[in-house]
Amino acid sequence: MNPLQLSDARLDHIGIVVHNIDEALATYCGLLGFRLIERTDAPDHGVEIAFLDAGQSTIELLSPTGGDSGTARFLARRGEGPHHVCFAVDDIEKALTELRALDFRLIDESPRPGVHGLVAFLHPQAAHGMLIELLQKDEAR
Amino acid sequence: MNPLQLSDARLDHIGIVVHNIDEALATYCGLLGFRLIERTDAPDHGVEIAFLDAGQSTIELLSPTGGDSGTARFLARRGEGPHHVCFAVDDIEKALTELRALDFRLIDESPRPGVHGLVAFLHPQAAHGMLIELLQKDEAR
Repeated sequence: MNPLQLSDARLDHIGIVVHNIDEALATYCGLLGFRLIERTDAPDHGVEIAFLDAGQSTIELLSPTGGDSGTARFLARRGEGPHHVCFAVDDIEKALTELRALDFRLIDESPRPGVHGLVAFLHPQAAHGMLIELLQKDEAR
Repeated sequence: MNPLQLSDARLDHIGIVVHNIDEALATYCGLLGFRLIERTDAPDHGVEIAFLDAGQSTIELLSPTGGDSGTARFLARRGEGPHHVCFAVDDIEKALTELRALDFRLIDESPRPGVHGLVAFLHPQAAHGMLIELLQKDEAR
């Protein structure tokens, strides 16, 4: 069975979960000098999001907007800090098919709409505690 | 006071702390298809390290080799998972001077030798739980 080829994917962004986006932006933009690219709500995921330019990659600050989301549970359990890393792949269905063939444990068996395309999360217990997101970007971007 | 300009820095790598490098390599290389770049010991930091090609960036798997290191305490407290994110800067002394002027809490007041150059860690409590490493790469690389 061939492995996935994530070295050929692009590290699209790292996600950092925070209590309050405004306070985090004051630190990340006001002190550390990251430039804000976009700020948006993702109600389907129960989070508010800010994307920051991090050179060849992006930082995603995410904050739960209430209710019982995975991000809210993560924040309650582990506190603020690194949440996930996202790799952009060309064909997310193909990637998930390959991962299933490898018996790799998934959170999302099928891709679902994210802010910038179709996304699926792999299970962190299968990747030594690291929550990995795959993203197939919308053509428009 | 001007902020640091980390959007102009390069996201050099993300660090993931694991119990056992060999088991983590079996997952990250054998299943997810990341290519191993380098495997090394960093006895001064009390860790064994593997660097994996992640497209335009790098994944650093790190595992404590025993003794009382920051990484060992992190692993004992939080378990396996994301540990730090590293940005490559041109002048690490200048960056630390700027951070001190901003009253940004640091772990390392002065740069110290890392595997690939001079490194310094900022305090995660100052960056919403994210442990940020600055790296001034050796000229040779």
